[in-house]
Amino acid sequence: METSRTEIASLGEFGLIEHLTMNNETRQAGTLLSVGDDAAVIDQFGRQCVISNDLLLEGVHFDLMYTPLKHLGYKAVVVNLSDIYAMMATPTHITLAIGISNKFSVEALDEFYEGVYAACEQFNVDLIGGDTSTSKIGFIISVTAVGEVAPDKYVTRAGAKVNDLICVSGTLGAAYLGLQLLEREKKIFLENPGIQPDLENQKYLVGRMLKPEPRADIVEWLEQAGVMPTSMIDVSDGLSSELLHICNSSDTGCILYEEKIPIHDDARKMALEFQVGAVACALSGGEDYELLFTIKQEDYEKVARNVDISVIGYITEKEEGANLLTTGGNKHKLTAQGWNAFRS
Amino acid sequence: METSRTEIASLGEFGLIEHLTMNNETRQAGTLLSVGDDAAVIDQFGRQCVISNDLLLEGVHFDLMYTPLKHLGYKAVVVNLSDIYAMMATPTHITLAIGISNKFSVEALDEFYEGVYAACEQFNVDLIGGDTSTSKIGFIISVTAVGEVAPDKYVTRAGAKVNDLICVSGTLGAAYLGLQLLEREKKIFLENPGIQPDLENQKYLVGRMLKPEPRADIVEWLEQAGVMPTSMIDVSDGLSSELLHICNSSDTGCILYEEKIPIHDDARKMALEFQVGAVACALSGGEDYELLFTIKQEDYEKVARNVDISVIGYITEKEEGANLLTTGGNKHKLTAQGWNAFRS
Repeated sequence: METSRTEIASLGEFGLIEHLTMNNETRQAGTLLSVGDDAAVIDQFGRQCVISNDLLLEGVHFDLMYTPLKHLGYKAVVVNLSDIYAMMATPTHITLAIGISNKFSVEALDEFYEGVYAACEQFNVDLIGGDTSTSKIGFIISVTAVGEVAPDKYVTRAGAKVNDLICVSGTLGAAYLGLQLLEREKKIFLENPGIQPDLENQKYLVGRMLKPEPRADIVEWLEQAGVMPTSMIDVSDGLSSELLHICNSSDTGCILYEEKIPIHDDARKMALEFQVGAVACALSGGEDYELLFTIKQEDYEKVARNVDISVIGYITEKEEGANLLTTGGNKHKLTAQGWNAFRS
Repeated sequence: METSRTEIASLGEFGLIEHLTMNNETRQAGTLLSVGDDAAVIDQFGRQCVISNDLLLEGVHFDLMYTPLKHLGYKAVVVNLSDIYAMMATPTHITLAIGISNKFSVEALDEFYEGVYAACEQFNVDLIGGDTSTSKIGFIISVTAVGEVAPDKYVTRAGAKVNDLICVSGTLGAAYLGLQLLEREKKIFLENPGIQPDLENQKYLVGRMLKPEPRADIVEWLEQAGVMPTSMIDVSDGLSSELLHICNSSDTGCILYEEKIPIHDDARKMALEFQVGAVACALSGGEDYELLFTIKQEDYEKVARNVDISVIGYITEKEEGANLLTTGGNKHKLTAQGWNAFRS
């Protein structure tokens, strides 16, 4: 039936999503925010319900060779909660659908669920639904997270205004370096099965990869400090890609200061060891699950009091583009990688 | 770390779900109904939100060799809507996450989305969220459906009472026979690629498999007729399995009359051709997406007016067990197959 064939790679991830959803119609009056943000928002007679879902696929998003199942269960939940927090909403419920092969034992699944329940307990959410399928094609995890937010208090990617300050929580790039470390040790192990990986000294980096923590604390702090961000997104694909999402949705440009990007000492050291730029890891690495957001200038003093938030740049007119100002004083266009696994 | 290994097959699908969720705690006051029904129910300040999600996996739930992508998109949505209708709720929104390999073209994905949007239009729901991943392991579809219901008007599997009548909409077994037909034609085609399958005369059976229709009309009719079912479930795994779910959840037994099970003429003919029992197809075939429900005896006259609803048995004390009364007058224990793909 196909008369022509367009490769998915020619559109890229974000182009593909836009292509597939450009004719998406809204019929329900309660649909406040649809495809294109961290989560969707539905109005239900005054209360607003935030909803998000994600797939985690073996061989794409995780490698069971170095991912303990308990950590995987925890991570599958929290990466979805992170999307809810990125709307400045509070997650309340999750559903979990899994596809499993019979190579799994019940004990292995129990470990996975231990992680799921640990995340539910930690973030006070209820697991309310499930679907369990056989899978002949690896372990497949689908989590849907539901949250709530006071009427019209949710924060999208689209509200950044010129001169707003760009902020990010925690540090960036460590998760990517943790992944590189795990991949290196896996390779060594496969070549020399006698050698056990020694990751004792790299607990921080490996932990950032295997057990990310969504920034519920930052959302709570912002609320208590009375700071209402003008836009917000969580860092799953890398700072560069997320900042471009904010700029595109808000119809603005930005200046990002290289020297302001928060990077942990362990990440800097490991980047040296791998001979990659630590800043490049922060920009394109992803999986940090920190919150990237913009605030009005008048909120600067409040935010400056929180040592766990860095101000890393500011929003400009769209015409100026999205730029990185390097420590050496050069200006570079920010580019988004997204995933480009389709190209390989 | 594992000290023992229990095979998943030893628990079966339903045993596994029970095992994994038996220690599931509820923390949110708004959680009205959790794991174990067609969908979960959340109270949001008086309004009740119904939520359900399902995975559809290539090679397990569908075969791209004989499943047109547009039909697949439609089916992926409606099987989830069916879960919402089975709560006597109205679906309002869906999210869709897919995992795709680069063997897919953009045009192929467009066809899939055409089906998704057709289902959204048909049932007046909004697609509000998406996730698009690469998949190295086949086409993976995860749909979450959200619906609403007036406070405490949702119907679970757990409310059937002794002497309630068991009802089912439409006819049963045809989807399974449609699948057998498609599998047979696939086999013939693979052995003799010159022979094109002729399914023209089997539009009903093939349509029941490839393009199921959730029974929104039955839910609407019941509401308008003022019939509030005491329990309800949709028929995805086969009549036998679903009826046992109702009996287990409601703590009852049942009598099912073989002669009352509604079976389409085309299904009877095809069952003869395949030398299988048409009743066995209805009991264990699945994928009919009809509604199975129980009503109070006093509602019998109302329901009898609807030619699309069959009364097929009644609820008994638990001690009497769940039984099929055959046309010949014999009594057989009902057994649930669920999926047992883990055994293969």
